[in-house]
Amino acid sequence: MKKYQRLAQQIISQIELGVWRPGDRLPSLREQVTSSGLSFMTVGHAYQLLENQGYITARPQSGYYVAPRSHRPQTLPPATLKQDEAVDINTYIFDILQASRDASILPFGSAFPDPRLFPLQQLNRSLANVSKSATAVSIIENLPPGNAGLRHAIARRYAQQGMTISPDEIVITAGALEALNLSLQAVTEPGDWVIVENPCFYGALQALERLRLKALSVPTDINDGIDLQALEQALKSYPVKACWLMPNSQNPLGFTLSAEKKAQLVTLLMQHNVTLIEDDVYSELYYGREKPLPAKAWDTQDMTLHCSSFSKCLVAGFRIGWVAAGKHARRIQQLQLMSTLSTSSPMQMALVDYLGTQRYDAHLRRLRRALAERKHQAWQALVRHLPGEVKIHRSDSGYFLWLELPPELDAGELSQRALAHQVSIAPGKMFSTSREPTPFFRFNASWQWGEREERGVILLGKIIREMMK
Amino acid sequence: MKKYQRLAQQIISQIELGVWRPGDRLPSLREQVTSSGLSFMTVGHAYQLLENQGYITARPQSGYYVAPRSHRPQTLPPATLKQDEAVDINTYIFDILQASRDASILPFGSAFPDPRLFPLQQLNRSLANVSKSATAVSIIENLPPGNAGLRHAIARRYAQQGMTISPDEIVITAGALEALNLSLQAVTEPGDWVIVENPCFYGALQALERLRLKALSVPTDINDGIDLQALEQALKSYPVKACWLMPNSQNPLGFTLSAEKKAQLVTLLMQHNVTLIEDDVYSELYYGREKPLPAKAWDTQDMTLHCSSFSKCLVAGFRIGWVAAGKHARRIQQLQLMSTLSTSSPMQMALVDYLGTQRYDAHLRRLRRALAERKHQAWQALVRHLPGEVKIHRSDSGYFLWLELPPELDAGELSQRALAHQVSIAPGKMFSTSREPTPFFRFNASWQWGEREERGVILLGKIIREMMK
Repeated sequence: MKKYQRLAQQIISQIELGVWRPGDRLPSLREQVTSSGLSFMTVGHAYQLLENQGYITARPQSGYYVAPRSHRPQTLPPATLKQDEAVDINTYIFDILQASRDASILPFGSAFPDPRLFPLQQLNRSLANVSKSATAVSIIENLPPGNAGLRHAIARRYAQQGMTISPDEIVITAGALEALNLSLQAVTEPGDWVIVENPCFYGALQALERLRLKALSVPTDINDGIDLQALEQALKSYPVKACWLMPNSQNPLGFTLSAEKKAQLVTLLMQHNVTLIEDDVYSELYYGREKPLPAKAWDTQDMTLHCSSFSKCLVAGFRIGWVAAGKHARRIQQLQLMSTLSTSSPMQMALVDYLGTQRYDAHLRRLRRALAERKHQAWQALVRHLPGEVKIHRSDSGYFLWLELPPELDAGELSQRALAHQVSIAPGKMFSTSREPTPFFRFNASWQWGEREERGVILLGKIIREMMK
Repeated sequence: MKKYQRLAQQIISQIELGVWRPGDRLPSLREQVTSSGLSFMTVGHAYQLLENQGYITARPQSGYYVAPRSHRPQTLPPATLKQDEAVDINTYIFDILQASRDASILPFGSAFPDPRLFPLQQLNRSLANVSKSATAVSIIENLPPGNAGLRHAIARRYAQQGMTISPDEIVITAGALEALNLSLQAVTEPGDWVIVENPCFYGALQALERLRLKALSVPTDINDGIDLQALEQALKSYPVKACWLMPNSQNPLGFTLSAEKKAQLVTLLMQHNVTLIEDDVYSELYYGREKPLPAKAWDTQDMTLHCSSFSKCLVAGFRIGWVAAGKHARRIQQLQLMSTLSTSSPMQMALVDYLGTQRYDAHLRRLRRALAERKHQAWQALVRHLPGEVKIHRSDSGYFLWLELPPELDAGELSQRALAHQVSIAPGKMFSTSREPTPFFRFNASWQWGEREERGVILLGKIIREMMK
């Protein structure tokens, strides 16, 4: 370790121990040179490194300050979490998800888009067509890796984006959730480190916990996405095995990484020989002109397991997803044979039938237009009825808005109080392993806007104003 | 520890170390008294304990002999298994299962019954009926614990057997395999001991390995099932958390425990506060007059997770099973929400529709009759064409026969050589974690018997005769 690295490491330890707290001004370069006996150049290098790693920030004409904790790579609690706490957070998420089943509750907290946006009639027609087939009830043809026709159809959609994915490396799964879980299992052993975003999809946190993996969360900006410097620092500091990310329309924040950043991300992971588990379930819900490429498109070394599904853009109830698993395809199939055996044959066949009608792209165009409009309407209502202090982060894809209450307020409390009035939201606590109250919450904006939705938002505004008093 | 226990423990250690080998005659009571200086009563007690525990057997007028290894409780290798070996056995099973997809291969090794025995037309009609429903594509109504109508229908089938199972404790799963995996997860932590039968369903062994559980295998007799004394010994010797058993039509052996033995089994497990995970997928395939009760029927302390499915008796391709989970129902749902979210809505609804037609029991009667007939035909052909040295174990349920080659032959070799001629069997190695060659194999007898099947059995006979030379 070089001198400047040793100094940097020493200051990191001091920050970790609370010697220097977020916001504290560090000794100036001059003071540090005097106290340490090191050269200006060495101290300068050390401070530069700390700044690159997100530990400190330079303020012109003022000096160096310890950065807020959220800008630094963090180890997350699950590794040391007591069983009770782990069950607590799962129970919490479980209860919120269960609330979404109750038709009397306004589902702003739901993870699923309004099913009325899906092509019910055509899907039912496909189901009816399958019911004429002699092989619908048989399992043999559709055992892992899954129905050949469906894998070909998925491979052709990759090809439309200029990506060459063999049907043979695609495995059909019970939604993207099973794909992600199997991918994680395929490339890790209990005790391994895995990088996730912060905040991130709660399914990732639950999967890590269930598989006894250690989570390393990397700060993620609402506009720019994952902090690549913090990521690099984490990769250098820990023996990381895999990285679970959503480069497109991240849940819950909504950002989509730029092509440049995806390229940088993949290069960085390849350099460190770390597998990327790419959760891409919202990729069809872009608002721009072109479907964004997955990060896998930049992967030249078969290091990416690309997971997606039809659940968010065509039909939730079929529970059909897939993973383009490259060299891991065989291992994924083995793991599936051990846990769920396979997905159901008629569901796979119904999708093949539907995709064969060539109506999918037209449906997706309508769906994207509807979601963009509905999100705009929801946003307008929220602006109208919530206090100006509430920040509304709005991305150009998907159907989620990410809201930020004034910093002293707890979105968990808002969630509880709103639920008592039959209105659900998804509090930020669901997307993090931290036990701390958080002012953030996710808002599902996929619903047709009407009087009931308007009243729901008015109620949220009223509760927030009460909480602000 | 009392004197006789200490002596017994000492002899067990000697047996484990190979001082006394299976078949060896132990020192007589008199010799042991002389050499140990202990009383006749103490030595007698010790020998009695060893006999109860299955370590030794008494032969009248001859003395005490070390019992065959298979009569003793055994710890299985997975806990200390190297990753490569674990992958090996999974690859092995995987390849055998994959072979069953190839229509050109005679599927005597298959785990599934002939799908032509299933009510294709009625199931397709139910699928078509579901395709008229507006909620088929929606997921919300069928999230865990699953479709309410289906859970009620299952609860009513329990009630027909005199069992009171609330629909609220039933969770719908992706086949019994997911039910069993979730049950195991719900009641264990990595590193826990779990009891399985030897031999047992390979899915159990894979699940234990995947969840980093330690397997304790208890000798299981082809006629009488699990050795309760060995089970008790294992329960006394290890901090066992759960026991995964098939009391009805065990896979691969085929026996069904008597009612008395089920009662004893459950009492024993309750005494030791050990959860029973009951795999009951073949319970509808009995040949007797009445459907045998599951062990859960004797459980008065809510210690049993009863897992079953429609895959072996109605339709394999739907991938619908369930667990009657009692107090664990909520935890099971949480685990499912983390891993596969739910099973598909149309499949659950199609089963509700089918069960509503009241044709299920008539179908099951026909199915049982057909399986009994086909098994008899297969048995006749095997008797006709295999050498007399091959033992054919035939149980009064299900569609498997369990065959035993002469002891020096390896069924793994038979499997390989037969597969080269497009005939599959399921070698005993699949049902054990032992790496040793085994003379046993499972034979699927559910196929309509014809010329092709006859030729397949003739081929098996020919290969076995070659191997015997």
